[in-house]
Amino acid sequence: MSDIKKVVLAYSGGLDTSVIAKWLQQTYGCEVVTFTADIGQGEEVEPARAKAEAMGIKEIYIEDLREEFVRDYVFPMFRANTIYEGEYLLGTSIARPLIAKRLVEIAEATGADAVSHGATGKGNDQVRFELGAYALKPGVKVIAPWREWDLNSREKLMAFAAEHDIPVDFKKAGTKSPYSMDANLLHISYEGGILEDPWAEAEEEMWRWTVSPEKAPDEAEYIDLAFEKGDIVAINGEAMSPATVLTELNRLGGKHGVGRLDIVENRYVGMKSRGCYETPGGTIMLRAHRAIESITLDRESAHLKDSLMPRYAELIYNGYWWSPERLALQKLIDETQQNANGEVRIKLYKGNVIVVGRRSEDSLFDASIATFDDDAGAYDQKDAEGFIKLNALRLRIAARAGRKMK
Amino acid sequence: MSDIKKVVLAYSGGLDTSVIAKWLQQTYGCEVVTFTADIGQGEEVEPARAKAEAMGIKEIYIEDLREEFVRDYVFPMFRANTIYEGEYLLGTSIARPLIAKRLVEIAEATGADAVSHGATGKGNDQVRFELGAYALKPGVKVIAPWREWDLNSREKLMAFAAEHDIPVDFKKAGTKSPYSMDANLLHISYEGGILEDPWAEAEEEMWRWTVSPEKAPDEAEYIDLAFEKGDIVAINGEAMSPATVLTELNRLGGKHGVGRLDIVENRYVGMKSRGCYETPGGTIMLRAHRAIESITLDRESAHLKDSLMPRYAELIYNGYWWSPERLALQKLIDETQQNANGEVRIKLYKGNVIVVGRRSEDSLFDASIATFDDDAGAYDQKDAEGFIKLNALRLRIAARAGRKMK
Amino acid sequence: MSDIKKVVLAYSGGLDTSVIAKWLQQTYGCEVVTFTADIGQGEEVEPARAKAEAMGIKEIYIEDLREEFVRDYVFPMFRANTIYEGEYLLGTSIARPLIAKRLVEIAEATGADAVSHGATGKGNDQVRFELGAYALKPGVKVIAPWREWDLNSREKLMAFAAEHDIPVDFKKAGTKSPYSMDANLLHISYEGGILEDPWAEAEEEMWRWTVSPEKAPDEAEYIDLAFEKGDIVAINGEAMSPATVLTELNRLGGKHGVGRLDIVENRYVGMKSRGCYETPGGTIMLRAHRAIESITLDRESAHLKDSLMPRYAELIYNGYWWSPERLALQKLIDETQQNANGEVRIKLYKGNVIVVGRRSEDSLFDASIATFDDDAGAYDQKDAEGFIKLNALRLRIAARAGRKMK
Amino acid sequence: MSDIKKVVLAYSGGLDTSVIAKWLQQTYGCEVVTFTADIGQGEEVEPARAKAEAMGIKEIYIEDLREEFVRDYVFPMFRANTIYEGEYLLGTSIARPLIAKRLVEIAEATGADAVSHGATGKGNDQVRFELGAYALKPGVKVIAPWREWDLNSREKLMAFAAEHDIPVDFKKAGTKSPYSMDANLLHISYEGGILEDPWAEAEEEMWRWTVSPEKAPDEAEYIDLAFEKGDIVAINGEAMSPATVLTELNRLGGKHGVGRLDIVENRYVGMKSRGCYETPGGTIMLRAHRAIESITLDRESAHLKDSLMPRYAELIYNGYWWSPERLALQKLIDETQQNANGEVRIKLYKGNVIVVGRRSEDSLFDASIATFDDDAGAYDQKDAEGFIKLNALRLRIAARAGRKMK
Repeated sequence: MSDIKKVVLAYSGGLDTSVIAKWLQQTYGCEVVTFTADIGQGEEVEPARAKAEAMGIKEIYIEDLREEFVRDYVFPMFRANTIYEGEYLLGTSIARPLIAKRLVEIAEATGADAVSHGATGKGNDQVRFELGAYALKPGVKVIAPWREWDLNSREKLMAFAAEHDIPVDFKKAGTKSPYSMDANLLHISYEGGILEDPWAEAEEEMWRWTVSPEKAPDEAEYIDLAFEKGDIVAINGEAMSPATVLTELNRLGGKHGVGRLDIVENRYVGMKSRGCYETPGGTIMLRAHRAIESITLDRESAHLKDSLMPRYAELIYNGYWWSPERLALQKLIDETQQNANGEVRIKLYKGNVIVVGRRSEDSLFDASIATFDDDAGAYDQKDAEGFIKLNALRLRIAARAGRKMK
Repeated sequence: MSDIKKVVLAYSGGLDTSVIAKWLQQTYGCEVVTFTADIGQGEEVEPARAKAEAMGIKEIYIEDLREEFVRDYVFPMFRANTIYEGEYLLGTSIARPLIAKRLVEIAEATGADAVSHGATGKGNDQVRFELGAYALKPGVKVIAPWREWDLNSREKLMAFAAEHDIPVDFKKAGTKSPYSMDANLLHISYEGGILEDPWAEAEEEMWRWTVSPEKAPDEAEYIDLAFEKGDIVAINGEAMSPATVLTELNRLGGKHGVGRLDIVENRYVGMKSRGCYETPGGTIMLRAHRAIESITLDRESAHLKDSLMPRYAELIYNGYWWSPERLALQKLIDETQQNANGEVRIKLYKGNVIVVGRRSEDSLFDASIATFDDDAGAYDQKDAEGFIKLNALRLRIAARAGRKMK
Repeated sequence: MSDIKKVVLAYSGGLDTSVIAKWLQQTYGCEVVTFTADIGQGEEVEPARAKAEAMGIKEIYIEDLREEFVRDYVFPMFRANTIYEGEYLLGTSIARPLIAKRLVEIAEATGADAVSHGATGKGNDQVRFELGAYALKPGVKVIAPWREWDLNSREKLMAFAAEHDIPVDFKKAGTKSPYSMDANLLHISYEGGILEDPWAEAEEEMWRWTVSPEKAPDEAEYIDLAFEKGDIVAINGEAMSPATVLTELNRLGGKHGVGRLDIVENRYVGMKSRGCYETPGGTIMLRAHRAIESITLDRESAHLKDSLMPRYAELIYNGYWWSPERLALQKLIDETQQNANGEVRIKLYKGNVIVVGRRSEDSLFDASIATFDDDAGAYDQKDAEGFIKLNALRLRIAARAGRKMK
Repeated sequence: MSDIKKVVLAYSGGLDTSVIAKWLQQTYGCEVVTFTADIGQGEEVEPARAKAEAMGIKEIYIEDLREEFVRDYVFPMFRANTIYEGEYLLGTSIARPLIAKRLVEIAEATGADAVSHGATGKGNDQVRFELGAYALKPGVKVIAPWREWDLNSREKLMAFAAEHDIPVDFKKAGTKSPYSMDANLLHISYEGGILEDPWAEAEEEMWRWTVSPEKAPDEAEYIDLAFEKGDIVAINGEAMSPATVLTELNRLGGKHGVGRLDIVENRYVGMKSRGCYETPGGTIMLRAHRAIESITLDRESAHLKDSLMPRYAELIYNGYWWSPERLALQKLIDETQQNANGEVRIKLYKGNVIVVGRRSEDSLFDASIATFDDDAGAYDQKDAEGFIKLNALRLRIAARAGRKMK
């Protein structure tokens, strides 16, 4: 194991990754570089510095990646109306490629030959981190301690921490959530605990970012969202940066009980797993984006996107953000967004995201044609006969040849 | 025009189709057979008999098709989690093939050589009626009066009615809704009027089947839905026929403000159109069906279905229910539903349809594998390394060859 | 009909379009602009000038579009390995958008308000011409004489020509081919005549561009094709322009009996139709392109392209080259071709196009990994176990739950 | 390793699997059951009995599976016109599921708890065998000696054989082919040796089943193939069983130099690999099947199949024959074949498979509509105008709104 000289660790500052840092030093006899990022998880990242220093770590990277996260990952993904298995907005999946990229870039910058992360061997995150790392730095070594060590219980972990003077936040440790959680600016997720019984309803106290619809305000709130090329650039007329948009939508959605989800999903590694998610801002964005597309996108472009979306969602879920097929799909998706400009009016009320209006200077909605009133010749109803007749021709020929269609 | 001897008319009993009946008699000098069906539109169908008789019509078909409608059309469609353009549950689209089929069957039974309907030349319904008719009876003539006549305003229509002693329900006519509406057991739709401005919010008084979320009960309601082969067969433990299931879900959804939708959609005939829909029962069914699939469907079957769904939705929307490609897709879809059995628990609250639990004797959810606790060897985390390494191989080879993936 | 002032006609100089020119002048009382293009059909275009002048036409466009045709239409299409219904290389389909574009551009330049073409009302070409024209100039009028007039037999056409002093090349007319033919630099097609019986073998004398395999040289010929970004840029080491590449490949393929095809295809307008095609150069290009991709394209990019190809082929066949969905797909396709560089060696022999070698500086073929010999650790066979185990996990869980997979 | 009591080995009777049999006995101390199948590889299977007996093996299965192979695997696959990566007819891939199924069935019959095979750790076959085994018997143990042992060179293998008195056919061993080969009734494949350089042309002496086009007869041969539900049931009027059909087509194709292929393909395990294949009968079947479909399949059914084919091919290539998604796709495919009946006439000549005619009582080819001659009103050309106009509507609206489509 001695051929690894330096490893960059995705370091949260928490117990697990602190133990990993120490374990890496010990097991591989290598230098550890820590990388801690603010991607909107809602916790201070600066405290990670002192903890890392306490373990003798010399190269410490602490970065605010929120704008990059939303601009280069969340927004491009939402341009495709991406949903995994009909429900999941991919909040965890979309953050991993950014972490993988920075791990690799820091490895380049520091001359490290390996990267490491705290994901377990049963989940999707290990795959996402590692596929990303391999795609961006093919010769990198990846160390996944959870697949290697025998510290496979909380007790062993605590014992290791105690033995190695790893500062444990005992107050926090004592009130440890029964759930495995992950958070970033797009969502917070919950797994484990009673959720492992898919018939058991999630407890109200589990949810952290949103109030329940029951506790949400009795008064609805209207918001106007402005789009440019498929991305939200302003809320209620106020221009905002990508991360600010998502932060504000999270606030609004959370206030109105929007964005809770409770599903059983299919992991890439082969098993089903129950997950609960809060994605308040994302839930609003998805509906609003569909609405702006509904008036600005050509039908066949929209249908083409819809037909490709499941594959695009699958590849993000599975960890292939950094892949040639994702890049190719993104070209197609982005091409369709050139005119996805305009405004959408949304009503938020007790868990509901209701689209009530949409308008655009690039609208393809032509009231003079769609109208039930006289259209002054904009559309010749007689054309419909030929349209139907020729579309029916193959069916008629088949029916005449005796084919049964019922 | 004299070569048509007898025409079967899809007859609602209302003003428009009464005018059509008379116009057909006059214009084509042919016998008219009326066909009026109860597909759950919520209006009496029996009154159509007297009206038809008053016009001298001798062959009058009045039928209750609600069970057939839900069992053979709505349920098969919901097995695919069918949504058009990410939002629309196809409530109008799915009723047309049944009407087309009965029109043709009645034409066979009565020796009629033509069928007729009251759909306009701008919409999708003409396509759906006529493609169905041609597919099932290739030699049939189709008469679409709205594409032929010059009665293209309400005034002309009323004048024609008056002139020909067509009984107009003046009270009703006087309070005519400003919207063009269509209803069946799956939904009610609204088009036209102020909806022709996609920025204008729909008026509260437009909605007919659901209360607003604001007016829905303050108390949530839990319901248990039992599935067999992808179809709901019982609610709260009580076995029900398909139409009864949907009727009851409509009642429950309507009571809790569930299933309103306001979209701009792309019509098959080429223009965009604003539509508002209430689909209370269908909205519940879709979420519940996804939930039962989430624990009983294999991942790749589920993803295959998801990838085909947009095409399946499109063909139903476009009117190709009676087509060989729909039949082929249905075979695939139905094959995936063999084990979609079990129960889903749903919480209804002010517009929200919240899945809170799902269980099945055919569940593929294996807690012993997914658990965050010790799994007693059910899953070897070391397998993940090889899994990732081989999945990454092509990316590493490409990266080594100098390919850029960011 | 008097509202049309000037019409641009796609004019071949032959009898049919000469009659059309005259008929347009007469029927619409409008000015006619002729547009004649050399797209490699193998006939002189200059003689069209005198014929047009003889009819009093003042604005005459005669253009050599061969380079544009191959560079901007044929090559982009071949980047996708495009085949319609598993066989047809879309030789006719791909030429129509260029003609449509020039018709519209000339209409803009000359102030014409209409365009006209000589395609019949039963075929795909009318659709391709007109969809293109409408997409590029939405207010244009389209005149399709074959759908309007009653000159629906050769006799009537000849009579009209005689009556109006249209110069008919009687020698040519006398020996008129029994087939309806179309040619451009990509292919020549034959329809009609005895081909209308799909059981009848095409006559040897029908084929014009290729010798039969039987008459091809007994000696095979090897050629080296150099690719840059998916396009052929040199043959046997000699750099060539796009049209020169295709001309030379046609010569080589034709000489060796390559590229004959005899199929029944499904037209967009609803019927099946028998067509025979000679596509000597295109047949070579397709095989060679697949070969260069086989070593330079990532697997998932290749599979993504393959999965989209049928849709791309369909939209070209149906006439949607000028559409947002084609543009979006093209972005995806072109993105995949950035590294499709290198050389392919082909052996031509009596109808066979045999790929015998491929090499590239951008190759992803890594002999050190694929080798059956010792690979010096480049690939760890033990990784395969984990790969298989996790890929099998969902199947094992399903089987354990009693699912039958045979 | 002592927990395995009995293992079923896919046993060819050759050196490698004989060594494996002995190695299993030694290493696992378990009983070995041998399973040898005739799937048309062209070698006697009966000699495997004596060899197995010589190693003290008591349970020996030797079976002729040729009919089952063609009927239940090859034919269903060809119904989809299945091709991997545009070229490969999946000859190796399609045989593996049958072997996997019999391995598992024999394990059930003999009470064995494990299966074993001789595939290496770099290829696709290990995946195909093992996914199949796990899907059909989820608790089975799989032993893949090539991933475990250190006999990773021919010398070590020979030494092991000598040491353990394994009867080596030295004559054969002395003239060992430089290629790694695999054969069954559908094809024979070659990998390794000089093929590892993708620029090197395959040597003429490598090919075993087909003559070169150069050496094929100078006289073409016509054959008539009769189809029922998509499968060939007779050749030249003579009814034949599935395996007899394929055997005869192999003879005919081989004689005329048909079916050689030289490609670089993408393996599921992540690397590219050069393979040469001879698939004489399959090459004929594919062309003929497309031809019978061309007159009997509805357009949209055909296009739906074409759009799904790449996914179907991929899953067979990757080893997922025994999976719910394959079963679901097969339902769709088989549904489309109900009318794929009739006859196809093929001309074979020096490597060419030329379709010259096709006819069927279930033909959808309607000469009266497609004809260039007068069609007596079967098709109204005026319908085309409406068809085009409505299909163009969205493009015109977009163009009017300023969208650029070129």
